[in-house]
Amino acid sequence: MANILVVLEYDGTDFCGFQRQPNGLSVQECLERALLRLTGRETRVVAAGRTDAGVHAWAQVVNFRSSSRISVADWPAALNSALPASIAALEAREAPEGFHARRCAKRKAYLYRLLNRPVRSPLEARYAWHYPRPLNLESMLQALQAARGKHDFSAFARREPGDRRSPVRTLSEARCWREGEVVNVLLEADGFLYHMARSLVGTLVEIGAGARPAEDMAELLRSGERSRAGATAPPQGLFLARVDYDCEHLRASFGRKFE
Amino acid sequence: MANILVVLEYDGTDFCGFQRQPNGLSVQECLERALLRLTGRETRVVAAGRTDAGVHAWAQVVNFRSSSRISVADWPAALNSALPASIAALEAREAPEGFHARRCAKRKAYLYRLLNRPVRSPLEARYAWHYPRPLNLESMLQALQAARGKHDFSAFARREPGDRRSPVRTLSEARCWREGEVVNVLLEADGFLYHMARSLVGTLVEIGAGARPAEDMAELLRSGERSRAGATAPPQGLFLARVDYDCEHLRASFGRKFE
Repeated sequence: MANILVVLEYDGTDFCGFQRQPNGLSVQECLERALLRLTGRETRVVAAGRTDAGVHAWAQVVNFRSSSRISVADWPAALNSALPASIAALEAREAPEGFHARRCAKRKAYLYRLLNRPVRSPLEARYAWHYPRPLNLESMLQALQAARGKHDFSAFARREPGDRRSPVRTLSEARCWREGEVVNVLLEADGFLYHMARSLVGTLVEIGAGARPAEDMAELLRSGERSRAGATAPPQGLFLARVDYDCEHLRASFGRKFE
Repeated sequence: MANILVVLEYDGTDFCGFQRQPNGLSVQECLERALLRLTGRETRVVAAGRTDAGVHAWAQVVNFRSSSRISVADWPAALNSALPASIAALEAREAPEGFHARRCAKRKAYLYRLLNRPVRSPLEARYAWHYPRPLNLESMLQALQAARGKHDFSAFARREPGDRRSPVRTLSEARCWREGEVVNVLLEADGFLYHMARSLVGTLVEIGAGARPAEDMAELLRSGERSRAGATAPPQGLFLARVDYDCEHLRASFGRKFE
């Protein structure tokens, strides 16, 4: 059985997230249905990041095992013929046997897009969070600076009952910049806790709006108390932008690089 | 009665175009319904450009007459409370009595977005035409150069029966450039015939793909024969980007400037 790696782009608007859910259509379900249709076999896919409902992906990496006679070069076109318009397979390659899209991921980059102007925008509504009041990017940068590095991110995660995994993550990159009416927030880490990217952005926006000081970021990280952090930013502004692999099985980057 | 000018942004995906049609919902109908709801009066709106079904607007200019007590500064918020999410009022001002959004328009700018990569993109599908084969931008620029200036654009217009208006227009700007995976085509003219922007782009893409020589542009303009031009490019790539006024009533520009 070959271990096939596929890079996906998707519009998360109409999905309940990447992962299968009892109610609602997931990206995983669409992909596994497409694989059943193409190969005649039930095939399980694993993804680098389990994006939430409404979150988009410029580059989500998945892998699955298949004994199909579809050649690696033909996988993207085959999948695109069987996937809905909201999901596309961008590229495929054969990965070493031990490769696992999530466990082997060294780093993931998420970009959050804020539309920062007084009036709402019909042409940005699907792909940005409309924040109408002015944002002070210097305070936001100062807060992001404090969030960089290795921390316990409990204050920025919704903890699932019974979850015993460590809440410590390393944020290797955290910055924001203006591009016309859009404010981009880039977050790169070795892993993201549940709602972590959106909780960080929610808090960051409160800082940018002057509702709390930039120093709150360090204070929140120390406290570890979710109740003291800002609200979770809405999903439509968030994009899984890149996944980096650097393990014995694979050394490669998929998605966007930011200068 | 005040003459109110409003700048609109809209996502054209779900509309049958700007203008009212017997079948299908138009931007005009939504706007006139919002005005009826806000003022209690039947109000007729006039637009700078009658965009087709599926065509978007970053800046469409409309005007209407109203004796409502809504102040000019309050019109955008009032309209946005009554308009669907796919339409937004960006700004409003009181225009001189004689101002007419279409007749006074001196120049309009349309931008056409082509997604030029092998694989389709779920995140660009609503706002670009996916053209998968390579495009030679030098040939396209050469063809656009030939299209600039004052010409009879009959070869690029769907003529309505009984239409006796002149098919002569002046294309003051016509250029294209690459921006990542997107090829932008900018067209500015004193007026656009029915389907003119999309017919020009359809022909241009055939030139860029090498299916016809760049010299065809000048030849087509001379011939005036619609049947010899390229296909009409699909609507979702087209955006009304700017409207310029320079008349006795108003001298102003609304929308995007391109460097």
